[in-house]
Amino acid sequence: MHFMSALRAAWQQRDSLLCVGLDPDPARFPAHLQGRPDAVFEFCKAIVDATADLVCCFKPQIAYFAAQRAEDQLEALIAHIHVRHPGTPVVLDAKRGDIGSTAGQYAVEAFERYRADAITVNPYMGRDSVEPYLAYADKGVILLCRTSNPGGSDLQFLEVGRPGGGVEKLYERVARLVAEDWNASGNCALVVGATFPDEIARVRALTGEMPLLVPGIGAQGGDIAATVAAGRSADGTGLMINSSRAILYAGADEDFAAAARRAALDTRDAINAYR
Amino acid sequence: MHFMSALRAAWQQRDSLLCVGLDPDPARFPAHLQGRPDAVFEFCKAIVDATADLVCCFKPQIAYFAAQRAEDQLEALIAHIHVRHPGTPVVLDAKRGDIGSTAGQYAVEAFERYRADAITVNPYMGRDSVEPYLAYADKGVILLCRTSNPGGSDLQFLEVGRPGGGVEKLYERVARLVAEDWNASGNCALVVGATFPDEIARVRALTGEMPLLVPGIGAQGGDIAATVAAGRSADGTGLMINSSRAILYAGADEDFAAAARRAALDTRDAINAYR
Repeated sequence: MHFMSALRAAWQQRDSLLCVGLDPDPARFPAHLQGRPDAVFEFCKAIVDATADLVCCFKPQIAYFAAQRAEDQLEALIAHIHVRHPGTPVVLDAKRGDIGSTAGQYAVEAFERYRADAITVNPYMGRDSVEPYLAYADKGVILLCRTSNPGGSDLQFLEVGRPGGGVEKLYERVARLVAEDWNASGNCALVVGATFPDEIARVRALTGEMPLLVPGIGAQGGDIAATVAAGRSADGTGLMINSSRAILYAGADEDFAAAARRAALDTRDAINAYR
Repeated sequence: MHFMSALRAAWQQRDSLLCVGLDPDPARFPAHLQGRPDAVFEFCKAIVDATADLVCCFKPQIAYFAAQRAEDQLEALIAHIHVRHPGTPVVLDAKRGDIGSTAGQYAVEAFERYRADAITVNPYMGRDSVEPYLAYADKGVILLCRTSNPGGSDLQFLEVGRPGGGVEKLYERVARLVAEDWNASGNCALVVGATFPDEIARVRALTGEMPLLVPGIGAQGGDIAATVAAGRSADGTGLMINSSRAILYAGADEDFAAAARRAALDTRDAINAYR
């Protein structure tokens, strides 16, 4: 599967810009799953099966699996998505960043071990730290640009000198570097938080049709209307709008997956109302 | 174990600023370990047992374990270091970086699951992305500042406006933020590559006695004399100078651990010659 092709097909065929984030927190699982050794897999599998026709991609957050010693369950979950919901891209949210030789090991972890279709990567260490991921031309490489958290401004909002004169924000420099240089294989995307719609619009202006992964609606307070208006591409797609907790924990008992489906449907439709 | 106290004790008692990096690459293991299911653990354990009295800390690089599906062997290795070589700090080189709720999961992974004494963290997402690690006041939080790779300059060497006027490089801003703000519990350190001794000196000037983790000697070409001259603190310590491949793969057959010990001894002594 080629990530960019699969994402575009999912946008069209499922009429959805919704990305469901898989952040399994056992403390919030329904009672009937508590204490089961495969609870992480079973919880996520139920969410996936209930929502796959409503999403353009799934985004498992590896930290939640690693904290639970549940790497094997993450492998099984991604394999399940590929088998049961073919054509649904899986973004491994790992935010890796390291020098080339080590980044090569992280690329093996993401793309060969977990069989993810895309990975999130931190740009702080520069181009050669990203090249080992870019070398997998059929995989997506999603660089952090303007993150949704308050501290994102500590570095990303600093003004840096622009070659040729003037200044730009650090996140704008990252957007330009990726769009103008790192994206030679056409497999790059960017993370821009829903909490900053002005910056989503700026990144859209700098990057043409590049896909944007947008976390921060729901629990973090980002606004759907403003996000879509600022970030959609010319054909009304271009966005992976992530929701995690508001969907995963929409219900608290045995029918949690049905509640998650209703929340996913509502979110997809709310997004589509503004496209 | 309190990371900063243990590190200072190790500097003094072992008369060493050497950090041995544990980057296990099965393709480079000696023949007698090839194909063994516990080869990653056995290789690293032999290196650790042969060099523990010569180091101020060990630094396992988690990507090498994750690419091999060897998380259990990493857990066993760190447990082995704590039991057999008490007082030897373990730095988990993970370069994590995410919003607070997710960073909390990474902190659980590093400090509770793996029982590491310190972790490397990427500063791009700002202070609130680092706070979950800082909350473990007895653990070390080692922020990327000026990394050893060529692409490190892409962002870290950009000039940003200084509050109050003038400009500074982005890595200098990171060093100041950490020294002046994030280090309230005294548990922070910084990563500065040996390939940039001028910047090591600048970071030392900005951060007082803060410990610096310095990768990049050996295979990456950093110079020991320049690193020590630029980075040592007033008492001749202050540095964790990392060497990985030059020590791990000093020998290629059954006596690889003895060869690693000789390489570690030579490196420690070469460092000490310039203190």
